[in-house]
Amino acid sequence: MAPTGPVHEALAELELVDHHCHGAVTADLAFHTFESLLTEGEAWPGVSPFDSPVGIAVRRHSAPLLDLPRHAPPDEYVARRAELGAREVNRRFLSAAGVGTFCVDTGYAPHPITSPAELARAAGAVACEVVRLEQLAEAVAARGVEAGQYAAVLRTAAEEAVRRPGVVAVKSVAAYRTGFALDPRRPADAEVTVAAGRWLAAGGGRLTDPVLVRHLLWTAVDLGLPLQLHTGFGDADVRLHRADPALLTDWLHRVAGTIPVLLLHCWPYQRQAAYLAAVFERVYLDVGLALHHTGPARARAVLAEALEITPFRKLLYSSDAYGVAEFHHLGALCFRLGLAELLQSRVDADELALADALRIASWTGRDNARRIYGPPVSEPVRDPRGRPTRKV
Amino acid sequence: MAPTGPVHEALAELELVDHHCHGAVTADLAFHTFESLLTEGEAWPGVSPFDSPVGIAVRRHSAPLLDLPRHAPPDEYVARRAELGAREVNRRFLSAAGVGTFCVDTGYAPHPITSPAELARAAGAVACEVVRLEQLAEAVAARGVEAGQYAAVLRTAAEEAVRRPGVVAVKSVAAYRTGFALDPRRPADAEVTVAAGRWLAAGGGRLTDPVLVRHLLWTAVDLGLPLQLHTGFGDADVRLHRADPALLTDWLHRVAGTIPVLLLHCWPYQRQAAYLAAVFERVYLDVGLALHHTGPARARAVLAEALEITPFRKLLYSSDAYGVAEFHHLGALCFRLGLAELLQSRVDADELALADALRIASWTGRDNARRIYGPPVSEPVRDPRGRPTRKV
Amino acid sequence: MAPTGPVHEALAELELVDHHCHGAVTADLAFHTFESLLTEGEAWPGVSPFDSPVGIAVRRHSAPLLDLPRHAPPDEYVARRAELGAREVNRRFLSAAGVGTFCVDTGYAPHPITSPAELARAAGAVACEVVRLEQLAEAVAARGVEAGQYAAVLRTAAEEAVRRPGVVAVKSVAAYRTGFALDPRRPADAEVTVAAGRWLAAGGGRLTDPVLVRHLLWTAVDLGLPLQLHTGFGDADVRLHRADPALLTDWLHRVAGTIPVLLLHCWPYQRQAAYLAAVFERVYLDVGLALHHTGPARARAVLAEALEITPFRKLLYSSDAYGVAEFHHLGALCFRLGLAELLQSRVDADELALADALRIASWTGRDNARRIYGPPVSEPVRDPRGRPTRKV
Repeated sequence: MAPTGPVHEALAELELVDHHCHGAVTADLAFHTFESLLTEGEAWPGVSPFDSPVGIAVRRHSAPLLDLPRHAPPDEYVARRAELGAREVNRRFLSAAGVGTFCVDTGYAPHPITSPAELARAAGAVACEVVRLEQLAEAVAARGVEAGQYAAVLRTAAEEAVRRPGVVAVKSVAAYRTGFALDPRRPADAEVTVAAGRWLAAGGGRLTDPVLVRHLLWTAVDLGLPLQLHTGFGDADVRLHRADPALLTDWLHRVAGTIPVLLLHCWPYQRQAAYLAAVFERVYLDVGLALHHTGPARARAVLAEALEITPFRKLLYSSDAYGVAEFHHLGALCFRLGLAELLQSRVDADELALADALRIASWTGRDNARRIYGPPVSEPVRDPRGRPTRKV
Repeated sequence: MAPTGPVHEALAELELVDHHCHGAVTADLAFHTFESLLTEGEAWPGVSPFDSPVGIAVRRHSAPLLDLPRHAPPDEYVARRAELGAREVNRRFLSAAGVGTFCVDTGYAPHPITSPAELARAAGAVACEVVRLEQLAEAVAARGVEAGQYAAVLRTAAEEAVRRPGVVAVKSVAAYRTGFALDPRRPADAEVTVAAGRWLAAGGGRLTDPVLVRHLLWTAVDLGLPLQLHTGFGDADVRLHRADPALLTDWLHRVAGTIPVLLLHCWPYQRQAAYLAAVFERVYLDVGLALHHTGPARARAVLAEALEITPFRKLLYSSDAYGVAEFHHLGALCFRLGLAELLQSRVDADELALADALRIASWTGRDNARRIYGPPVSEPVRDPRGRPTRKV
Repeated sequence: MAPTGPVHEALAELELVDHHCHGAVTADLAFHTFESLLTEGEAWPGVSPFDSPVGIAVRRHSAPLLDLPRHAPPDEYVARRAELGAREVNRRFLSAAGVGTFCVDTGYAPHPITSPAELARAAGAVACEVVRLEQLAEAVAARGVEAGQYAAVLRTAAEEAVRRPGVVAVKSVAAYRTGFALDPRRPADAEVTVAAGRWLAAGGGRLTDPVLVRHLLWTAVDLGLPLQLHTGFGDADVRLHRADPALLTDWLHRVAGTIPVLLLHCWPYQRQAAYLAAVFERVYLDVGLALHHTGPARARAVLAEALEITPFRKLLYSSDAYGVAEFHHLGALCFRLGLAELLQSRVDADELALADALRIASWTGRDNARRIYGPPVSEPVRDPRGRPTRKV
């Protein structure tokens, strides 16, 4: 039973903005490595990531793009992937994603992965960059700095980083480092110096000091660019209950009227995120990562919760794909299918006018991101090879 | 596709008790003011509250009552509203709501709004009153009192307030002021005096002192009337995670066997509220506010979660409508449609006997409120103009 | 409309492992006692537990097994139960449950209930035992022990308890006693001695000391058996927000690589539990208790949330039935129906291959438990009367 109707058609054709993703691995992948990239956990003995909702979705929706039948077995899937080679595999999935612009978080790359430009080239799309603040701070520490100079050096490094062409936003993983039950106040200079002293004396490394993590959030305010925040679902490093975005409310009050704040992923706190987006002018959300991990069978349900009270100018699309290009495609597919089913069913029940449904689809899939990020997201300079083709 | 079946018919005919709502504005509304009354946030540039689930629901379900086509555009909607005038608009929505009794929280009125009597007259219904405790306390402070006399003067003021004809309950917004992670113990007299001294010395005003907020909850216990508690969803003043009603468990243990406690709104913590209603004899819940904000498309889903384990004598109907009479109507409509779909589908699947479905509909829509509040909710004295007419 | 299709048929035939349940009462039950066993709360005047989702489910799905029509009235239901006698009632429900192996928590028995052997006999099944650690510790205190010897005596008692034939796991109700926001570290011997001294000096009894409760969790690690943990939904003793399994993340990191940890019930935190199961190799979950309390009408929805991201080798079936054998049957029925609907609808939409759906059904209903617990769960020695018969 193919999903049909004008909303499905419009969403199938819509060139998305994927406002938060990562690169795709450039190497051919052995079975176990591919498996481990399918999960936020690991590939454990006897518990293959193929045997999970995302694995089922890959076999169902990714296999045909590799010329395999739907629901192809895992070993055939990975063998065919190797046969085609990483370059061709990436090209197929990235172009099929139907994404016009990717905003790429370049601060996480434990594997050799595509640069934003490589990702864009493979997709026939445009790529922008998102600068990860914790990585920036850790690089400052690694290069060596006096505690009393930390704030100034970080500030300069951040200003330089965001001045690079194509940078449209910064990102924080404060959710992982301290969680959101943080002191909402801007830390005083002296506090930052003391905390930096402690951190640097311990050799720098992974930044988890609450004063310095919070200082990064305020640095984002000073930079003036949109701030992407990891919230909710992630790998085992997260403490899920401390990544509930509602915990940020006090901080959001303090920064109201400054920068856009984009709550990423959110699951299972999509309703809490929706509340914040409904009551704060410059708070937005997406349900990236959850889309492909839950798969099409549940993406509609997660989107339905995310949209229960969210103003339609406040939801964005992201894949949060990392590593396997299947996810850049699958995120887009789950978003298109899930949102189309949700909107079309309301149109069919006469709860929503078709014109409004089409507007909501364009806004959430593309235009909200263009509005928030501005150029080059809003005025993408197309790769000469033109628009990506895609199948949904 | 019109929803049909005996449960839909019964709920369409049922005269509801709206056990928690506010007045409707009495002035004609300019576009921006109307917009701002549609949202728990504000009407921000480029993010019209019409472009949200509640805005879609108003254009779909309210427009026809103003003689407009379904899905009428926002500007036509507000123009027609002005053309008819606030009085006629209120009369149409309030009478169409099909509510026999409104319990009106009179403690929140930033706009000129209808009194309970005016609301009742416009609806052809009966209105009772709910006294807001924080407002009472702030009025005591504003009139001037010695710290040592605060508790006694408040007690007297509260007793007088609830003795007024038509008062059926008290309400607290402790969720907004301190949240529910509060010390569950009754504060000692000396503590109250010290806290009152601090508050009064600072000039009174908005009461946020944890001892005094908690003292108000215990005052409710002494008054012996049902206590309505804001929980969950609200405006930007709330810290959502501190308004999770599960945080009240220790306090509910202490007051078990005294007064009925009615958890209002609850979204997104309707399952937590349902748990409390399932294990405490005198705890009840509703999903008011969430009904019209999520709209008919999701009201069924929210009600389904609220009813997952809730005893059927423990769920009530409220709109929590404030400001625009659309919401008094829309809340009722979402409740009727959502509950009817939920119950009828179970009857159709032979999971529920029709007679039981009809009983659950009457209980939750009307009889549970009558049972808890007693007269005049249970024995409403009808306005001479008789029963309201309504369309669902 | 009977649910049909190959997944329904497979699940209807599947001999389940109910990896966490309790005994069934052996006495005939008066109306009020039966009612009170239907609820995690109590049977309050005017609020019959029959008037709740679980009551509706019992009248619909249990009544036919007593030769009554579907939706039989409560008084007829309890009268027929008395007429048949507890022994026959238990036999009917337990054998109809279609469970091959019950893992029985023997640490909770406020009523005279079946022993594991009696439960097995009535069901024509095999029963294993789960040892409750808090009960063990309280028994140690009741027998008398010096504070300095508490840890050693407890250890010996625990080792003896789990050496009994048929014991396959231990269980903790730390969720009830302290909640999960606990210090994740293994307590030092001296800490345990001090805490034990305090507890014993106070006369022992219900163990709520945070050091000693936490010490029990670490005792489980030392024992090496799978540890079942109550999480989420329960009676009024629980503080729901402190029973959110996400709060255990720090502890789960510390014990990673040691014992399997089975998160029981989980509702309404099934998504949080699913996250933990997705990122920790040896964490598993079920939605027992919630299945029969929400009833078939919502069991599918709860299972759908539980399975949103959960690896299919990580979900198990349990009823958590206590007291009335209706629940041993109803839990199984809700699991079969809910999971079959969920999987079959995905097969029908070509989102899931039938072979995969059948594998997921067998894994979650039986094989995951066999894999985790080993013999005798994995190699049940059948009662000579052979396989139970069942109807779904």
